[in-house]
Amino acid sequence: MADSATVTPAPSSGATDAIRRHDPELRGFASDNYAGAHPEILAALALANGGHQVAYGEDDYTAHLQDVMRAHFGPAAEAFPVFNGTGANVVALQAATERWGAVVCAGSAHIHVDECGAPERVGGLKLLTVPTEHGKLTPELIDREAWGWDDEHRAQPQVVSITQTTELGTCYTPEEIREICDHAHERGMKVHLDGARIANAAATLGVPLRAFTTDAGVDLLSFGGTKNGMVFGECVVVLNPDAVRAMKHLRKMSMQLASKMRFVSAQFEALLTGDLWLRSATHANAMATRLAEAVRPVEGVEVLHPVQSNAVFARLPRDVGERLQKRYRFYFWDEAAGDVRWMCSFDTTEGDVDAFAAAVAEEMGKR
Amino acid sequence: MADSATVTPAPSSGATDAIRRHDPELRGFASDNYAGAHPEILAALALANGGHQVAYGEDDYTAHLQDVMRAHFGPAAEAFPVFNGTGANVVALQAATERWGAVVCAGSAHIHVDECGAPERVGGLKLLTVPTEHGKLTPELIDREAWGWDDEHRAQPQVVSITQTTELGTCYTPEEIREICDHAHERGMKVHLDGARIANAAATLGVPLRAFTTDAGVDLLSFGGTKNGMVFGECVVVLNPDAVRAMKHLRKMSMQLASKMRFVSAQFEALLTGDLWLRSATHANAMATRLAEAVRPVEGVEVLHPVQSNAVFARLPRDVGERLQKRYRFYFWDEAAGDVRWMCSFDTTEGDVDAFAAAVAEEMGKR
Amino acid sequence: MADSATVTPAPSSGATDAIRRHDPELRGFASDNYAGAHPEILAALALANGGHQVAYGEDDYTAHLQDVMRAHFGPAAEAFPVFNGTGANVVALQAATERWGAVVCAGSAHIHVDECGAPERVGGLKLLTVPTEHGKLTPELIDREAWGWDDEHRAQPQVVSITQTTELGTCYTPEEIREICDHAHERGMKVHLDGARIANAAATLGVPLRAFTTDAGVDLLSFGGTKNGMVFGECVVVLNPDAVRAMKHLRKMSMQLASKMRFVSAQFEALLTGDLWLRSATHANAMATRLAEAVRPVEGVEVLHPVQSNAVFARLPRDVGERLQKRYRFYFWDEAAGDVRWMCSFDTTEGDVDAFAAAVAEEMGKR
Amino acid sequence: MADSATVTPAPSSGATDAIRRHDPELRGFASDNYAGAHPEILAALALANGGHQVAYGEDDYTAHLQDVMRAHFGPAAEAFPVFNGTGANVVALQAATERWGAVVCAGSAHIHVDECGAPERVGGLKLLTVPTEHGKLTPELIDREAWGWDDEHRAQPQVVSITQTTELGTCYTPEEIREICDHAHERGMKVHLDGARIANAAATLGVPLRAFTTDAGVDLLSFGGTKNGMVFGECVVVLNPDAVRAMKHLRKMSMQLASKMRFVSAQFEALLTGDLWLRSATHANAMATRLAEAVRPVEGVEVLHPVQSNAVFARLPRDVGERLQKRYRFYFWDEAAGDVRWMCSFDTTEGDVDAFAAAVAEEMGKR
Repeated sequence: MADSATVTPAPSSGATDAIRRHDPELRGFASDNYAGAHPEILAALALANGGHQVAYGEDDYTAHLQDVMRAHFGPAAEAFPVFNGTGANVVALQAATERWGAVVCAGSAHIHVDECGAPERVGGLKLLTVPTEHGKLTPELIDREAWGWDDEHRAQPQVVSITQTTELGTCYTPEEIREICDHAHERGMKVHLDGARIANAAATLGVPLRAFTTDAGVDLLSFGGTKNGMVFGECVVVLNPDAVRAMKHLRKMSMQLASKMRFVSAQFEALLTGDLWLRSATHANAMATRLAEAVRPVEGVEVLHPVQSNAVFARLPRDVGERLQKRYRFYFWDEAAGDVRWMCSFDTTEGDVDAFAAAVAEEMGKR
Repeated sequence: MADSATVTPAPSSGATDAIRRHDPELRGFASDNYAGAHPEILAALALANGGHQVAYGEDDYTAHLQDVMRAHFGPAAEAFPVFNGTGANVVALQAATERWGAVVCAGSAHIHVDECGAPERVGGLKLLTVPTEHGKLTPELIDREAWGWDDEHRAQPQVVSITQTTELGTCYTPEEIREICDHAHERGMKVHLDGARIANAAATLGVPLRAFTTDAGVDLLSFGGTKNGMVFGECVVVLNPDAVRAMKHLRKMSMQLASKMRFVSAQFEALLTGDLWLRSATHANAMATRLAEAVRPVEGVEVLHPVQSNAVFARLPRDVGERLQKRYRFYFWDEAAGDVRWMCSFDTTEGDVDAFAAAVAEEMGKR
Repeated sequence: MADSATVTPAPSSGATDAIRRHDPELRGFASDNYAGAHPEILAALALANGGHQVAYGEDDYTAHLQDVMRAHFGPAAEAFPVFNGTGANVVALQAATERWGAVVCAGSAHIHVDECGAPERVGGLKLLTVPTEHGKLTPELIDREAWGWDDEHRAQPQVVSITQTTELGTCYTPEEIREICDHAHERGMKVHLDGARIANAAATLGVPLRAFTTDAGVDLLSFGGTKNGMVFGECVVVLNPDAVRAMKHLRKMSMQLASKMRFVSAQFEALLTGDLWLRSATHANAMATRLAEAVRPVEGVEVLHPVQSNAVFARLPRDVGERLQKRYRFYFWDEAAGDVRWMCSFDTTEGDVDAFAAAVAEEMGKR
Repeated sequence: MADSATVTPAPSSGATDAIRRHDPELRGFASDNYAGAHPEILAALALANGGHQVAYGEDDYTAHLQDVMRAHFGPAAEAFPVFNGTGANVVALQAATERWGAVVCAGSAHIHVDECGAPERVGGLKLLTVPTEHGKLTPELIDREAWGWDDEHRAQPQVVSITQTTELGTCYTPEEIREICDHAHERGMKVHLDGARIANAAATLGVPLRAFTTDAGVDLLSFGGTKNGMVFGECVVVLNPDAVRAMKHLRKMSMQLASKMRFVSAQFEALLTGDLWLRSATHANAMATRLAEAVRPVEGVEVLHPVQSNAVFARLPRDVGERLQKRYRFYFWDEAAGDVRWMCSFDTTEGDVDAFAAAVAEEMGKR
């Protein structure tokens, strides 16, 4: 073995040090995870750095996170930080189902549409999807797939998974969620809430987080940190400990156990101890509302769903959408129909919105 | 829906802002992921922050990471950042196997011992394990399980997975790896290298990374960032594009696709552009060597494997080990035998080592 | 170890020999797998018995089965006998997809509704379902889910699976299947045909099996033996060898490899060498048609789908259905709506049909 | 749709009816599933035929099978017929483990060596293998892998799986099994017995089946029918109902639910009601013993394991083995070492054995 004094460093790639490779003033309307991290989050990372902390979740930050989450969700809550939203959902759903279980969800649910089959492949879960209006399930819709109890030919519906706010930017009221939970529980099913944008829902509803989760009967949820301004990190929050089993084994087995977990937990602490989470979500929501109001009067633009979070769905002529995309980054939601999605985030400014709305009007005017 | 002006913030948990919850001067010998992040890494995170960057890997940092990795591994290399080591291994192994494939590995391999069955459950992989001395496979050992080609009753051995440096702190020479690769390739198998501590190997060997990877015939590897001083993040590096398929689909489906990937890639850039990776690994290795040398003369302490990285494995009376654990954090490796593992990391100081070695001698002297 | 002379036989259960435990004259309309086996099938089993034959498919009967299947499906066909229909489907679909693949199918498909999630759990397949009229897909319906190529967030649609005859007793024409195949192939997808009742389709269409399979562009199919009068056994028939990989490994790994395969293959030979398969299916279809014609005039009974196989779907008052069930075994298909399914099989007699139709009329008359 | 009168039968393959395609007088020593079915089994199939019986296990034969199994295994036993041995094992092991569970077994176990990874891929099970002498586990050997309770990094050992008789033809005594069960139960693990050749064990031991299963503490077992003279069919027998969950869902989901289950159950009834099972096994064992005794005196032939079932493992010069294979069908077990396996079955005759032993001596004499 070589003396370390003779070690030849790797060939230089030309660069000498980390450099900024992007324009920090450039923002679009593509997604709330195109945004970076809130500065308070980065500060929390720095604060949690240094020294040694036990790995894999036995650190002081993760211990304290339990208190933080309980302040929001009640004394029975237990927090399991993970890496990303798909991970949070799949770990949570596994914990609440058996091998032979199935999950009833909206046809627009992220777990069905955007996770490349991870629930099926990683979790072995069967998804039973229902078409919805505006992305929201109801007891009636759930019943379309919640049947066949004890029939071995049918994957057993054991969990209802709802998304708050939904993939279409709409928001369940606490009462709507309570009805779903009551309905599910009566049938022996549990309720999971995909809260990738749960902060936006609280901001929209103007109620504490627990009002539409713990207090409404939700059994467990995926708490979204990334879209709310974290560098990375989501958290499964178990509200009803009787609804799950073996969370920690399932988290590890699903490859969602962070070794330096202190860095996930410290971000959540920074987010959730004060009102950073709510400030950021309230702002993002307000920007979406501002955008919707600004484009609604533009002839030829139709706002598609109630704007109840940080998303605006709109329909406009496809050529207009395509020209707009050359100026601003955003996604077509349904290319054939000309439907687009415009997302705001914690760092979207009023100026961004106004300029974008003006661009919409301008491109529409070119027709 | 409520006016956002009336939103009630979440009940305060008592704390007002993020605060430091740990002693940043406290360090032990339990694991290199008990350490935090290198300050240069945090600086890179801050630099990459601000503005919008395309999510899920189409950002400028991930684009540049390709160049960074190619400077180390050659022009064919392609980098796929992921969250953690288990994720890197399982994504890589899936990419190099078919549904009916199996992986030959050491009985001590992390994929077999420490991943809660993720390779089997998430990847559907059958592991064929071989007992080894010092954690290192050889062509002869591989042949114990590399057989049964075309026999449908036998999961087909399609990949050999080696760990560099091994779970036991030992290090393959480039020649040893080349022999393994030649042997595997002759049999139609590919070679994966679990490089959770690949930087430590380069430091030990005193050669560029590609000398024992690309140039030795390795087809793909898991590059460890976390243990080398990152906040989080690992990277699958494909060296032989013909050896894998559908990396990006498999990464997403395995729940290892970071939305704000710029933050993983920027850390890797900070690590790998200059010599941070090598400085850190060289230092950690030197601390382990210093520790081994310091305890070797202590009667009753036996150093178990060649010390070729940042780990010292030792055997000492169990009661001594247990008393030591009250003063310093570390793990028993084999509780029955009294075997312990002492890990050093980038932030271990000479003073830490000397004080710990003195404690070992002191506790041994009490017998 | 004991001398075998002293072996004590197991305690007697009271019975001394196998005895008939059922009434062989009792038949209902519940399912074509309530029927037993055709006597010619049992004769074939006896003929294949005796002596030793290589296990796991290298026997003379399985070798000859290749010729039998090629006579029906063309010279490229390859036959892989398996145990049951779910097994045939899941093996076939795995062979035609990658780990990241998805399957487009009707919402009424057996793979979605009746297989307890086996495609998802055993095969790791994502099913993308489409609502249909009468259980039949069309190019337009397929396009609802056949999109998102190369998008890693979306499970990749790689196969279209159709059922012939459908779960609702309807039958695709060869032209309809050709359109589907052309459409799928243009998009790089393969076509699988679930032929649990493929014989009934051939009987209905009056064309050779290959007319609506090989010649229409189908890539692989599940050939149903059990419902066509076998004791047990189905067969994956690969029509386009380029569409699949590793069938034999996947069959074994999916627990569908029969050790004494000669007994499956000999049954298929008996079925398919002469016209037993077609005689049986033609008869079952004729009985269904007779039944539909007999109940159609009964006021209050509505025949629901075109009767194009051995199934009659009808709607009648729920109380009538329930009273009928006390006299004859059959299933409600949609309990809420009062929809029932009446199946005929190879052993259904004209007398059975006439008596049942009379019972329907009689129970309706009681209202 | 065509008039059925105009249906064109499939093109003739040349053959007109089922014909015997093999020599029923030819027998070898390759495997007990090279043998066909016992004539009494075929008679039972014929008796169970005719009329309609409820599918999927609600038939009269499967109902009665419960009594048959209880007569052997005690009043708590419950029988779940399945298709094959791999299916029986994987269904049973899933029923006794959680998603995060692992199974401790011998390195020679069928589930590890011969099932193409089905336990891992279909069941999501991690196998923890132990090298054994003669294929038998002991409490000490189990402890090599039965540890790490509650450690989320380690797949949790929840079941010990033993094989009786073992893959090497040896047989556990009831006492040995009781020790294993006590040991496992003390650690919270369950015991599964792979009884592919359970009848041979009862014949060797000269005790009722329950003596080394129910009475020894075994929780559940796979009962082998095929190798004991059935056409097809195995049965999971649950001895301790508290040890399993959801057997019927898991059987279906694992693609092991036979639609015409009466035909599996009727075979088991024929096998197990009288002494057919024991007669056949006793005979097969006696033939193996006769063979072992006949070759033991031949110089250059070494019998390798205690002959305690219907298998003889022997070592002989490889060229001799290869010449013998041109005369009789059998397998090399370890080609490099020249180890062969000779299996006897219910239809092996004394003449077969004597002629084969003479051939062994003759080929050895040619050296």
